[in-house]
Order: sequence, then structure tokens, then C-alpha cells
Amino acid sequence: MGRARFSDAIFLALTGSYPTEGVSKVVEAVLVSSIDHGATPPSTLAARTAASTGAPLNAAIAAGILTINAHHGGAVEDSMKFFYTAVARCDSEGISVAECAELLAAELKQSRKRAPGYGHRVHTDDPRTPRLMQVAQANGVAGRYCEFSAAFRAALAASTGRDLPLNVDGAIAAVLCDLGLPTEIANAFFIMARVPGLVAHIMEERTREKVMRRISPVDVEYDGPEPSSFEGGDR
Amino acid sequence: MGRARFSDAIFLALTGSYPTEGVSKVVEAVLVSSIDHGATPPSTLAARTAASTGAPLNAAIAAGILTINAHHGGAVEDSMKFFYTAVARCDSEGISVAECAELLAAELKQSRKRAPGYGHRVHTDDPRTPRLMQVAQANGVAGRYCEFSAAFRAALAASTGRDLPLNVDGAIAAVLCDLGLPTEIANAFFIMARVPGLVAHIMEERTREKVMRRISPVDVEYDGPEPSSFEGGDR
Amino acid sequence: MGRARFSDAIFLALTGSYPTEGVSKVVEAVLVSSIDHGATPPSTLAARTAASTGAPLNAAIAAGILTINAHHGGAVEDSMKFFYTAVARCDSEGISVAECAELLAAELKQSRKRAPGYGHRVHTDDPRTPRLMQVAQANGVAGRYCEFSAAFRAALAASTGRDLPLNVDGAIAAVLCDLGLPTEIANAFFIMARVPGLVAHIMEERTREKVMRRISPVDVEYDGPEPSSFEGGDR
Amino acid sequence: MGRARFSDAIFLALTGSYPTEGVSKVVEAVLVSSIDHGATPPSTLAARTAASTGAPLNAAIAAGILTINAHHGGAVEDSMKFFYTAVARCDSEGISVAECAELLAAELKQSRKRAPGYGHRVHTDDPRTPRLMQVAQANGVAGRYCEFSAAFRAALAASTGRDLPLNVDGAIAAVLCDLGLPTEIANAFFIMARVPGLVAHIMEERTREKVMRRISPVDVEYDGPEPSSFEGGDR
Repeated sequence: MGRARFSDAIFLALTGSYPTEGVSKVVEAVLVSSIDHGATPPSTLAARTAASTGAPLNAAIAAGILTINAHHGGAVEDSMKFFYTAVARCDSEGISVAECAELLAAELKQSRKRAPGYGHRVHTDDPRTPRLMQVAQANGVAGRYCEFSAAFRAALAASTGRDLPLNVDGAIAAVLCDLGLPTEIANAFFIMARVPGLVAHIMEERTREKVMRRISPVDVEYDGPEPSSFEGGDR
Repeated sequence: MGRARFSDAIFLALTGSYPTEGVSKVVEAVLVSSIDHGATPPSTLAARTAASTGAPLNAAIAAGILTINAHHGGAVEDSMKFFYTAVARCDSEGISVAECAELLAAELKQSRKRAPGYGHRVHTDDPRTPRLMQVAQANGVAGRYCEFSAAFRAALAASTGRDLPLNVDGAIAAVLCDLGLPTEIANAFFIMARVPGLVAHIMEERTREKVMRRISPVDVEYDGPEPSSFEGGDR
Repeated sequence: MGRARFSDAIFLALTGSYPTEGVSKVVEAVLVSSIDHGATPPSTLAARTAASTGAPLNAAIAAGILTINAHHGGAVEDSMKFFYTAVARCDSEGISVAECAELLAAELKQSRKRAPGYGHRVHTDDPRTPRLMQVAQANGVAGRYCEFSAAFRAALAASTGRDLPLNVDGAIAAVLCDLGLPTEIANAFFIMARVPGLVAHIMEERTREKVMRRISPVDVEYDGPEPSSFEGGDR
Repeated sequence: MGRARFSDAIFLALTGSYPTEGVSKVVEAVLVSSIDHGATPPSTLAARTAASTGAPLNAAIAAGILTINAHHGGAVEDSMKFFYTAVARCDSEGISVAECAELLAAELKQSRKRAPGYGHRVHTDDPRTPRLMQVAQANGVAGRYCEFSAAFRAALAASTGRDLPLNVDGAIAAVLCDLGLPTEIANAFFIMARVPGLVAHIMEERTREKVMRRISPVDVEYDGPEPSSFEGGDR
């Protein structure tokens, strides 16, 4: 307390070792990337729905967390497995990352399966991904997994004619692979990061909205402070 | 097993004594009254929202249960306290149930508070209430608490000019008071009854709906079997 | 309300059709079988632990339900899949239930896997199983799946020399298969049945125990009414 | 991402404004203070119990969060209310913080109530409290609420002869009051901080322990890295 940052202490608790300055910066960025995504994600809707019936804070958070699963926020683990398997194949077959990406894109097309970590319900290009990659590169963390994640997007677009973005789940997965973390830890990062966002939504529901209102999954408008007011906060 | 009915075994587990035939019939009716209320209650929406992200059955049920609170399904406890206090006052002040109802309606009007168990978001007259009262009367369970619950509705309408129905929470509360149950047990009945209904919704969400769909809190239509096909099932 | 029993209304909500008298009796028995198993199951411990910190009823129930998973109360689904696959093989290979049981016991032994629904942490012979089978037979519900479940226990004992009992998860699974229910519904029965049991434990924790006590997973003693006092309750 | 620290982004999400450097340091310390408290807290036991039955990560976290209530981790809100009321009284009655503390200690003694935020099941002196106070002072955040929290401990000891430490809930509450935060937000800090700790316990349960083991609430031993290996991590 008073010495370690919260995110460094989290990393220590989860891995048993204290992060270097570069790793620390990347972990901060991973956590910041997933704090919130507005009022439309299912976990936010579930948390607000619980709050609107009078749920205490912890119960509303729990309802939100229980709504983070395979199809929402829970793709990091599958993405990590996919990336670890892919890069292991580069080594075992002695092929480059780009060759492996093409091979896997072709196999996936044939099996008509979806690649975990690619595509997003809202974003045609997930704005969080390039930023996270940039931070990973600037801090010496981006390696073969980040490289593969980009190569695979290109291979997929070439193979199918449909350009699916690497979404934030996939981007986090690539970074966590380059950090050498186990796949079991994958979904924890999204959940740990999203809890504060859920808290903010629950607080707003309790203090600004009528109880038992019908909560629309789409009809929402941001009326908070201007983004510009957050500038200059680099630390 | 093979001898006790499920609802009788529930009553035994909760109270430590086996219900008489009359009490058994009333408890069955209380539980049946709350199994489901269509796709719009918040607990149903939360459970379906969790299910649509890929939640396992138990997690989706839990999300639903966490959305049963003061403003939805959770008014039974407050109603029981209100009824116990009211009828105790009849005794301590030596007044009739009707006089006490008028007294309390006047006090409530002055304090601008709401009476727990009266009024409903959808129903101007909750169809479950008269049926439950009928069953309680037919089986010798309806007593002074049921009597008070009706007298208070009339007194409230006379005093405020607005006729609020005794809702199903309030009706269950009156019946549980006449059964002499402790207020701590109140909300359990709604939750135990609603779990099977949540299960039905979750099953439907998983087997008939697309994952991650935007779930409307109002736009739903029933397309199940006709009610008439359930006739003749008396047991 | 006032006509359908709670368990019949549950069956109707889950399957869309009203149970016959025989099916009704069996469903009652399935639900009664799983209401409670004392103070040591993990779901009970989790619910009591939450209650001891001051959790409201619904949150403590939710904590309990979240602790019903593959290794506790959640084996019904896998058992159903196993039984459905096994009996389908009898048909496709034109062999008897007993032959199929021997075949599968041998294959299982070779693959060193465990059969879902067999064995119990406490019981060497689960007392709920023979009773449930008896009710299923007396009501004309027991069929090839119940038959297979018994044949497989014998085949397993003959093959491995270790006699593992069909536990209550497995027995429920066999019965639900003979009722022709889908596997997706499997775990719902255990959860629906256990919720009232959890309620009873939570009520007891709140009314009889000190807050924040250290809850032992083993050191408990029953001090409720004598079992004999429940006799004569057949309905 | 890449600019704001995780804890600063949390503060921004919850309050709408970006923290100053001093506030940032204090918020980091508040969050670090509550990450973990070993294997004995009820929330940790509930999360491990769920995990040991095969619960997915999010369900086990939810079980843990549902076990954070009034008697464990949930006293921050009541403490903040107590401190806000106390210091408001200094102003309204024109008395000093020390006088007010004596007054309130006397009143509390007479009403035989407990002060929220004082006393701990394990610690006779909560080691987190002086450290947090030190950080709050070093960063110019400690004000009248921190001052009152210490004065009240002394007044309580003088009045009752029993020296109850300000526990970490109370220390966080005093600091959050000096930050001017609303009481509704109080419990969020403990929950947000404890989630990563729960994740670490759940990971350990899944990777190192047998499923369905009987989890003792006391019989645990730390076998992780030496504390000294974390030195030199100031950032």
C-alpha cells in the first residue's frame, strides 16, 4: 500500500511475480480497455435490470458478472488457446507466422467454423485493438502472438473475402499470450476490468432512474462530461 | 419419496411440521400462483439476458433470482409485517378489522407512503388474488389477515379515491399470515415458485433464440399451447 | 391455482404438457429426492457462508445455486447423455441392455474414465436410488433406461471388482430418460428441488447461528423433529 | 489506454472526473489494501467452495461477491454515514472533533450499539489502517474525517475500557469521506479490490486442489513466494 499500483498488485496476486515497468504499462492498458462499453452489453443490462428492482450493489454486480460468458467477454480464453496452438504449429512444422495463418484460415473456411476473437456485433474495426497493440509494441511486449493475430486477420480476409476485425477479446488474448500467461487466467482480465464499469452503471441506475423502468437494450444516449476534459492525464 | 408431495415436503423442510390437507392445498396454490408472469418481469429478462450470452443453467437462474428484490417479487415480507402489525393493533386497541383498516388508510394518506402489496404495474385487478383467496377460504385457511387485506383495499379506495388491487405479493402475504408463518420466510415462497418459471424461459432462450440477441422488455408474443388443453387436471 | 399441484404445474411449464397421474407421482418423487442432504454439501455450505455475512435470502440462495456444478448435483445431464447413447446403441447394434452394459463397462475400464451417475462421496449405497426406482416401477414409468442403469452397475462391478452405487443424480437421469425428457432440462430438476432445502438452511443460519461464525464442513448434528413424526402423510 | 492507469480510469468512471496525482496515490492504496486477506474470509471460502464443484470462473467470483455483506467487507457504507454525520455535528454544534468523538462514544455506550468500522475478528490492531492513514497524509488527502476516525477510537477506549482498532473498512471509509465521495459508492471499493484476490484463490483451487474437497475455514498455510521478493517495486 502506497508503493505498488493496483494493477501491479493484481498482477502479483495472479502470477506470483511483480511486473517489470513495461509489463506493468501493458497490463494497465489491458485493464483500461475493458472497463466499459456503454449501456448496451448484456452484462450491463443484467446489472441495471437487477439494480432497478432494488438489488444491493453486490447482487447487481454478480448478476452482471454471470452474464459474461462465451458470447460476451468470454472469448479471451478460446482466443488464447487458438493463438498458443497456432504458434506452436509454426515451430513444430517449421513454417512462418504468415504461412501458418494462411493454413489455418483455409482449414477454418473448410470446416465452416468461426475464429474466436474476430468480429464484433457493433464495430467493423474495434478501436481498442490498434491502441492495445501500439502499447504492447511500445513497451516491448508484442511478440509472435500479436504478430500472428494480425497475420490471421489478413489471411482470413484473403480467404473468405470478409474482413473481420480482431476484437478486444482477441487483442487481449494475443497480448496475454505474449506475456506467457496461462489460458485459465484469460477471462479474469475482462471480468476484473468490467466490474468498475458495472459499478458505474449500477450507481447511475440507482441515483438517476425510476425503479422498475423498462430498460431498452438500444435506446440510450451519453450525457456525461466531454472526452476532451480527460486529456493530459498521462501517468 | 413416493408418499409426500413436493410442496408438502417443502412445507415440512421450512416449518418442521407436515401440513394438513387443507394447508397443503393452499400452499400448492401459493406456489402455483407465482411460477410465471410471461417474458417481461425483470427477473425473467435478467435470466434470459444471461442465457443469451451462453451462461450455464444455474448461472442464468442465479442472475434471475438476484433480480427478485423489493420492487419485484420481494414485497411479501413487508406486506406480512404490515398485516401482522395491523391485526395486532385490532387486538391492542379493541377495534374491528374494518375500523383498523380505515385508521391505517388515513395514516398512510397523511404520511404519503405506499402500502406494501397493493397496486401492480400491469394489472388493475390482479387475477391471481381472488383465486388465491377463494382457495384459502375453501380450505379453511382464510382468517383475519385475509379479511384485513380486503378491508384495507376498500378503506384505501374510500380514502384516496384510487382503487389499488391487492397484488399477488400482498395476497400471498395475507395467506402466509393466516398460516402463522414467520415474516423471515416470506420471500422464499415467491423465489421457490419462480425458479421453475425461470428454467422454462432459459430453456426457451437457449433452444429457440439467437445468441446475443437484443432482448426487448415488451415486444413478446405467446405461441405455446392453448390454455384449454390444460383443463381437467384437478388432483 | 387450486387445481394443479405445484409439481404438475412445474412439469407443464417445462414440457408444455400436463402429466398423467403416474408421471405426476414420479416427478413428485424426483423432486422430493433432492430437497436436502444435510449441512455438508458444498451448495449448502456456500449458502450458509453467504447468509452468515448478512446476505439477503435471494443472494444466499444464488450463492448456493452457483455451487451446483459438474461435481455436485450437476451430473444428471451427463448421466442422461450416457444413458441415451447406451440404449441407442442397443438398438443400432441389435444387442440386449445387459450386453451393451458389459460392452460399455469394458470400454470405460480401458479408457480409465469414470461413469457419470455412479459412486458417492458419502453413500456406499445411495438410499434414494432404490426408492426412486420403486416409485418409477409402481407407476409404469421405469423402462429400458432404468433397466440399463442397473445392468451397468452390475457390469461395472463385475469388470472392475468395485461396486459403485447408482447415485441420486444417476437415478434421476435414468427416470428422466424413461420420461423422454431432453438432456438440456436435466440439471433443472436438482436445482428446483434443492432451492427449498437451501432456504431452510439459510433460515436456520440466520435465526440460530452467530454471524461470521466459522462454518465447519463436517462438524454438524441434527436436532430437528424425529423422522417418525412425518409418518402417515401419504397423499 | 496506454495513458491512464487502471485505478485512475476507475476513479474517472465512478466520479466523472480525473483524479489529481495525490488522490490517485490514495485511491491506489485503498484498492491495494483490500485485494486479499488469505484463505479464511467468508467470500474466499464461498468462491473456493463453488470452484471446487466445477464452477466456471465468473460463477465462482459471483458466489464470492454475494458473500460480501454487512458483516464482511460491507461496513464501509455504514462507516461513511457515521463519519459524515459525526463531522456534520461538529459544525452544527460548534464543537471540536475530539469533543464530538467523546460525545458520540458516550451515546454509543449508553445505547449499547457497536460503531461501524471498529474491531476485527482477527486483528487487535489492523495493520492496513496506519499504512492507509500515512498514505492519505503524505498525499494531502487526510482531513477531518481521518482525524475523527482516530479521535473516536481513543474516545471509545477511554469510555469503554476496550480498545477496538479502526479496521480496514473504517479506514477506507474515513479516506473516502475526506475525498468527498458519496456513501452509495462505499462498498464498491472493497468489492472492486477483492475481485482479483478472489480470482487468485479460484485459480489456485482449480489448479492445485482436489475437486469436492472439504474446505476448512481455518486450516491453511501460506506457501507462496517470500514477501521480500516484492521489495523495490515502488512506482
